[in-house]
Amino acid sequence: MQTAATPRPVPQGFMQALEARFGPACETGLAARAHHGASESQYQTLLPDAVVFAQNTQDVVDCVNLCRAAGVAIVPYGAGTSLEGHTLPVEGGVSLDLSRMDRVLAVSHADFDCIVQPGIRREALNTHLRDTGLFFPIDPGANATIGGMASTRASGTNAVRYGTMREAVLGLEVVTPQGKIIRTGRRAKKSAAGYDLTRLYIGAEGTLGIITAITLRLHPVPEAILSATCTFESLAGAVETVVQAFHCGVPMARIELLDAMQVRAVNLRSKLGLPEAPTLFFEFHGSEAGVAEQVETVRALATANGGGAFAWATLAEERNRLWRARHEAYYAAVNLRPGAIGLTTDVCVPMSRLAECILATRAELDQCPVPATIVGHVGDGNFHLIFSIDPEAPEEMAAVEALNQRMVKRALAMDGTCTGEHGVGLGKQHCLVDELGEDAVDLMRTLKRALDPDNLLNPGKIFRS
Amino acid sequence: MQTAATPRPVPQGFMQALEARFGPACETGLAARAHHGASESQYQTLLPDAVVFAQNTQDVVDCVNLCRAAGVAIVPYGAGTSLEGHTLPVEGGVSLDLSRMDRVLAVSHADFDCIVQPGIRREALNTHLRDTGLFFPIDPGANATIGGMASTRASGTNAVRYGTMREAVLGLEVVTPQGKIIRTGRRAKKSAAGYDLTRLYIGAEGTLGIITAITLRLHPVPEAILSATCTFESLAGAVETVVQAFHCGVPMARIELLDAMQVRAVNLRSKLGLPEAPTLFFEFHGSEAGVAEQVETVRALATANGGGAFAWATLAEERNRLWRARHEAYYAAVNLRPGAIGLTTDVCVPMSRLAECILATRAELDQCPVPATIVGHVGDGNFHLIFSIDPEAPEEMAAVEALNQRMVKRALAMDGTCTGEHGVGLGKQHCLVDELGEDAVDLMRTLKRALDPDNLLNPGKIFRS
Repeated sequence: MQTAATPRPVPQGFMQALEARFGPACETGLAARAHHGASESQYQTLLPDAVVFAQNTQDVVDCVNLCRAAGVAIVPYGAGTSLEGHTLPVEGGVSLDLSRMDRVLAVSHADFDCIVQPGIRREALNTHLRDTGLFFPIDPGANATIGGMASTRASGTNAVRYGTMREAVLGLEVVTPQGKIIRTGRRAKKSAAGYDLTRLYIGAEGTLGIITAITLRLHPVPEAILSATCTFESLAGAVETVVQAFHCGVPMARIELLDAMQVRAVNLRSKLGLPEAPTLFFEFHGSEAGVAEQVETVRALATANGGGAFAWATLAEERNRLWRARHEAYYAAVNLRPGAIGLTTDVCVPMSRLAECILATRAELDQCPVPATIVGHVGDGNFHLIFSIDPEAPEEMAAVEALNQRMVKRALAMDGTCTGEHGVGLGKQHCLVDELGEDAVDLMRTLKRALDPDNLLNPGKIFRS
Repeated sequence: MQTAATPRPVPQGFMQALEARFGPACETGLAARAHHGASESQYQTLLPDAVVFAQNTQDVVDCVNLCRAAGVAIVPYGAGTSLEGHTLPVEGGVSLDLSRMDRVLAVSHADFDCIVQPGIRREALNTHLRDTGLFFPIDPGANATIGGMASTRASGTNAVRYGTMREAVLGLEVVTPQGKIIRTGRRAKKSAAGYDLTRLYIGAEGTLGIITAITLRLHPVPEAILSATCTFESLAGAVETVVQAFHCGVPMARIELLDAMQVRAVNLRSKLGLPEAPTLFFEFHGSEAGVAEQVETVRALATANGGGAFAWATLAEERNRLWRARHEAYYAAVNLRPGAIGLTTDVCVPMSRLAECILATRAELDQCPVPATIVGHVGDGNFHLIFSIDPEAPEEMAAVEALNQRMVKRALAMDGTCTGEHGVGLGKQHCLVDELGEDAVDLMRTLKRALDPDNLLNPGKIFRS
């Protein structure tokens, strides 16, 4: 998809100053710039003028100060797994790569928390925690960085039980556009001390400050973990099972929906051998007795809604295989069509409207000339569409965009949101206005202008300023 | 306690305009003004120039517009139960009472949520929900309004299981200082759509906007509820039980600590007849089997830490009597000394430091000439001190203030917060700077100036602007 780019001129001497300060950690070769200006989804690559690899908070401060003095934009960059073009430098400037700031700074076993640098990826964090009896549950699928996950208010498969990044973060260290280092909170489980600066930066998509350290809430690895899949006669039956499990208050850790075409895609990619029908992936966490109780309730609901037998994944490696397949759903779906590019979108609606929203959307997809799957974190009322689009057929992109708009409109009419977890980025800016109104988005602009008067940080995202 | 007041002049014609618009809903008599300018705790009464009772959102808009045009301050007012002077009009102006906006606008049984006006009190909301199978868990003790609870990021006894107002609110309707009505979120369980405006207003203590409607997350009434008390040989044993229960991941609904003097106070007020020793109040929520499992774990921990037999409150009326007594702990403690005024303060620390923090504080209290109790939401690491102070003895207030400062300093040194739930208000402004630093508080000031450039809303709270 064409992205409107309005690169700012880079003043004379700026690149030299940047290279003088950062040496080999400042890259200006095409490969690095193209890598950092590319998107995982439908957005065309836009090149930054340079890529700077920060090693520590002082590097971030110095980069911010150099850029501010020169009027050059900064786009914070983690793993580049965002799906709404968040890391594309629409006004050029510096892509500030934080992936080398990837250390675990502290783990408190006694408090179930840790402090990490923003560039660590969630899988690496969980590997680090392996022997502690603790884990970090937020899991958006992609092996994203914690900084990127905080910046997009990420959630994913475990959010139904453990919440999203909004709940997972106790406090942040942030470098402001003025080059100051602030701390937004400490390690107490709750606080009523002043404005909630932590939540201001979570989901701000890097437009208000650059996150340089994150204090995260961890959870004890449950005594018992059970995963299972269950195939349904109909999409409606699968969704109804989820809604009823919610109403019964079953504290499931994961409850994921894949429609028939998505099951075909993951079978092709991950050799799961599942029946090609609407399927739920479950995970249950708790005590042995608690898990048994949950399973009993959910199995009864599934059976009543046309679900088949549960296929269990009890061993850790079986579970990992299952969830790896789920996590690769996006690539699996895009690859249904050789040479296609992917476009994915998500909405989230109140549980009472989930079945209606998914079924109306699936009916539209069935009429759509472009192959598309539905996959979702349905325990939260959140689901995704994944399209595989022929890059040589602009009419396909247009058809998909129109369908996306209709789905967002449908979700908003159901009192839902235009994005449950992907964020606004470049693609959903007008949807945000439809959702909250011009005055609320103007208020966001006011916040942006107050905190970043030079429009230094990730300009052009969330709204046009 | 003397409160520095700097009343702004009220321009000629303003009071007439206010009375013309609001008629009898604008009160200027001394009784109403004194009621709205009084504090539940140590702060001396400050009189607003007028009290306006809003009936609906348009009343709020009109009041804001009249005040903005005249440069007159507005202090939003709910039930007046705040403990840090939040509702005191330090710059005079209008106390905008929202208690008549007390309707439940919608309840969705299927989505476990509701929309309420800000003036409804939490007990009235739960009475309204009585026959739905749902309840609203946040319970700060006082029968506060939901708007006030949102504005101070309230939490209370159930927060250990159900979270605080930060997690309980899905979205808000807010009147801005410019008189615009904005909506900050819809009813989806999660959203990544733009800046988290909802969390910006939660805990802003009425300084950024006036909340006129709140969408709340509700919870199903659990299948089984059991309450109990347990008396301990030592304060250390009681706290250690809490910390160990946290480490075992027991999902307790409530776990409250009362020290020996606090038990004496609630015995005197509420005739509980408990042994005058450190005591934990528990509540367990879950399935029958789940609750039995929790009880077994916690009972074993309590016994190992010098706890006695559990005294059960199984019937609803017994439970209510127990928790009513807990909720009246503040008044009970203040009344230990006839004619005394109360001063209460709270901190919250990481669980690993809770025992150390409480024991060091209790040791200081034992040396303090003013009677004081410890009571707390210890499952969150949060506890309160309640002092009963002779109003004729200024040296007592000075001694208590000094002790309060030392406790905050101790909590901050343990990476805790200067207030877990009471908020900053007037009393903890310098503590906030100690906790987050001058740059972070300056950033809060920047937000305040951007959203409320005329310093119209609740001036003088959280920080001096």
